[in-house]
Amino acid sequence: MKIQNVAIVGGTHGNEFTGSYLAKFWQKNPKLIKRIGFETKVVFANQKAFKNVSRYIDRDLNRACSLTDINNPNKNSHEDKLARELNSKLGPKDDKDKNCDFVIDLHTTTANMGLSLVVSDESELTWLSVSYLAKEFEELKVYRWLGDEEDGYVNSLGSAGFAIEVGAIPQGVLRADLYLKTQELVYKLLDFFEKFEELKDSVKREVSIYDHVALVDYPRDINSKLTAMVHKNRQDRNFQKIKKGEPIFMTFDGKTINYEGKEELYTLFINEAAYYEKGFAMCLAKKIEHKF
Amino acid sequence: MKIQNVAIVGGTHGNEFTGSYLAKFWQKNPKLIKRIGFETKVVFANQKAFKNVSRYIDRDLNRACSLTDINNPNKNSHEDKLARELNSKLGPKDDKDKNCDFVIDLHTTTANMGLSLVVSDESELTWLSVSYLAKEFEELKVYRWLGDEEDGYVNSLGSAGFAIEVGAIPQGVLRADLYLKTQELVYKLLDFFEKFEELKDSVKREVSIYDHVALVDYPRDINSKLTAMVHKNRQDRNFQKIKKGEPIFMTFDGKTINYEGKEELYTLFINEAAYYEKGFAMCLAKKIEHKF
Repeated sequence: MKIQNVAIVGGTHGNEFTGSYLAKFWQKNPKLIKRIGFETKVVFANQKAFKNVSRYIDRDLNRACSLTDINNPNKNSHEDKLARELNSKLGPKDDKDKNCDFVIDLHTTTANMGLSLVVSDESELTWLSVSYLAKEFEELKVYRWLGDEEDGYVNSLGSAGFAIEVGAIPQGVLRADLYLKTQELVYKLLDFFEKFEELKDSVKREVSIYDHVALVDYPRDINSKLTAMVHKNRQDRNFQKIKKGEPIFMTFDGKTINYEGKEELYTLFINEAAYYEKGFAMCLAKKIEHKF
Repeated sequence: MKIQNVAIVGGTHGNEFTGSYLAKFWQKNPKLIKRIGFETKVVFANQKAFKNVSRYIDRDLNRACSLTDINNPNKNSHEDKLARELNSKLGPKDDKDKNCDFVIDLHTTTANMGLSLVVSDESELTWLSVSYLAKEFEELKVYRWLGDEEDGYVNSLGSAGFAIEVGAIPQGVLRADLYLKTQELVYKLLDFFEKFEELKDSVKREVSIYDHVALVDYPRDINSKLTAMVHKNRQDRNFQKIKKGEPIFMTFDGKTINYEGKEELYTLFINEAAYYEKGFAMCLAKKIEHKF
């Protein structure tokens, strides 16, 4: 494990202001992210979407970074081009010798996910970092999202990395508390990389995580239009258990729909604005002790 | 005061889902808003913006309804055309004999304004309704916004009316609790209109309100770019006092900026997403007993 190049990516989604403004801030104040022993670059990923206060212009950049799409010459939307540029900066994804050893991709969510990490790779460096941060930040939650779409994530371009997700925060809004929290997490991670050789052997090789199981869509009619919304008893209950028979949705005429799954799982990313169009109302995960 | 025609307008802003979905719901279930003695029509105002999950296509519809703009033949954007259509349905604004006696315009805000009304006219019917609702809903807050832009509001097209604002709710999101709250408020108002002749004389002609004083913009650099965000100690403190010397903003490098106003005022619409581009971070108001 070598750590020579780290990238902080902000503004992957243009309407997630925390990462966008932090990227701009660090580009102006590079000393704050300078550490001994490695280079840290800051990438302000989708400036056009930021100016437009939208998640993306043509397609979701954080789903556009799969090797198939990057190598597809017919993919030429705004975000397809950005994905190729990012691949040059951070990857190449299909080369073992990458330009970036760790990608920190900054996100926010309208779900009250608090301070959380979304992890979608199995590299040792990623998990050592996750475990270290979980010990440093008591409130930090870890969601391993494997099995849906993660091949297209921006952080999949480097050798290791994850996405930081903080919320609840509306699109197009800055919240000082979550801005500071994100900043603090990034600084702590850079400090860890600086002292990596000294610290790595003391990091616990086990961490409590929420492991992705499934996506749950909103109830819809035959034209795919919503017929219900997240039930008020489920709203905001991220990282909490859901049991069979508990309310999960409420139809527009006020009828309760209960959760029918047999397994006791945890609900995450409840009512994230960007996921209405993707077709899911929340994620289900199981809580496990992940050893690596 | 005659009440013959009432209009419920939803989706004035396409990314405020509560009103959009309620308008669709009531269009399908007109019995629920049917009352004796008057007609209630439902208007789903900006369907194109709703499909686009954006506040507007070309310009803010809720600022496009001034008589000057409606009568300006050079104004032909998507929302200018909608404003003229609304004026035909609800107005005409420059005619005493209007098609609508009361306009209920449904909005949401990313600020945690709870259940609130934004009132921008002085008609007796408006204030009788406000006072009645304030008694029925203990948590209801009333903001009188006079002096900035209100001539362009959708609810200014009818003879009387107001906007309902509920929050905090991110753009592009439905929250069941606030959906139900908005619905309840509308039903209560329609019930009031139904029994208007019986109830009107018992309505208290005085109501506690927050009276608009000023808009406060974010600190910006010479290129109008933000240099600070709402301070974490001020975030979410809508309808709360702000005193000289209290933190109001935090710069991106963590410096606190204090409120310097001499008057003790109340902060409203703190950190509403749509107001970043309008150039204000919050509204200031004084609390008064409004007699009418």
